[in-house]
Amino acid sequence: MNKGSVFIISGPSGSGKDTLLVRLFEKCPELKFSISSITRDMRVGEVEGEKYNFISREKFEKMIEEDMLLEYNCYVGNYYGTPKEPVIRATEEGFDIVIEVDVNGAANIRKKLPEAISIFIMPPSFEELERRLTGRGTDSKEVIAKRMESSLGEIKRAAEYDYIVVNDDISTAVDDIISIINASGLTLKKQSQILKEVLEKC
Amino acid sequence: MNKGSVFIISGPSGSGKDTLLVRLFEKCPELKFSISSITRDMRVGEVEGEKYNFISREKFEKMIEEDMLLEYNCYVGNYYGTPKEPVIRATEEGFDIVIEVDVNGAANIRKKLPEAISIFIMPPSFEELERRLTGRGTDSKEVIAKRMESSLGEIKRAAEYDYIVVNDDISTAVDDIISIINASGLTLKKQSQILKEVLEKC
Repeated sequence: MNKGSVFIISGPSGSGKDTLLVRLFEKCPELKFSISSITRDMRVGEVEGEKYNFISREKFEKMIEEDMLLEYNCYVGNYYGTPKEPVIRATEEGFDIVIEVDVNGAANIRKKLPEAISIFIMPPSFEELERRLTGRGTDSKEVIAKRMESSLGEIKRAAEYDYIVVNDDISTAVDDIISIINASGLTLKKQSQILKEVLEKC
Repeated sequence: MNKGSVFIISGPSGSGKDTLLVRLFEKCPELKFSISSITRDMRVGEVEGEKYNFISREKFEKMIEEDMLLEYNCYVGNYYGTPKEPVIRATEEGFDIVIEVDVNGAANIRKKLPEAISIFIMPPSFEELERRLTGRGTDSKEVIAKRMESSLGEIKRAAEYDYIVVNDDISTAVDDIISIINASGLTLKKQSQILKEVLEKC
């Protein structure tokens, strides 16, 4: 059995990453999703173990001490992080696993898992990004400006990624990600087992 | 516009490469095929410019002298080769192009085009390779043995390739090649133009 791969997926506000990930997991139910550990309170509609594991601050700090996280961050007094063990276990069981993180988290994961494949989701143009961020209609100018600044800051670091998927048409973008995942399983390294099996009989 | 990529595809007798390529070009009509130049006589059913350009020995030797071939070989007194110019032109026009060659040809092309992406088509097992090579029923034992030896010789060099596609189910194998081609167009290098365009406006 071949080991699975780790796919880091990032995309700024306005890239359409969230909808894209929902569609990706609908089309690829065998794909695993890395569940983040966080210390903030559960919000209405959130389910334990779906996108997040809600844990105590003490437990999180113990995970930091014991180097059990691939990356973590502190935001408005709460910790967010990616536990290492479930990711490693999934790949060892042959599953591909997706970690959704921002550009800083991605950079930290790359240091610990240099073989991880990273994908950056881009809006198709600056104008479309503006349209998507202002189009919601409910936010103040300040909130929009802040979101725009944050998105552009992330896009400026897109060159740190292995692949760039432009999310213009969502179906195409989902298929692009599936192509990347599929192709990653066909590299010489991933196929070495079958090659060995055939060659042994020669 | 992004430049296209060059895909080298090899596969031994019994890999099912020929049928696979027919299906690939049916599903991807925009994909270009590199037409080989050869000096042997045209056979019944062959069409000039379809799979081969039939040229004179003098013309071929001039191409060798002027370094106009990505690779060439001499077999039973006739030359076979891949002209460089149409491959370069196709990629500059933004097209992906497939070159079908054997392991020696692939090795020579890699020297001249290190950025070319190479794919090796494998039979799913040694037993299936044997079955496919003997199953035609019309060939002598000697012919089969020779074909088997040649196939195994090629499989032993599969580790020179970037990707290995196992041709067990032909539809899956075609989709695998399409994934590789699609993913190759999404690398950071290939997407640098759109990234530049969005960043220029920031």
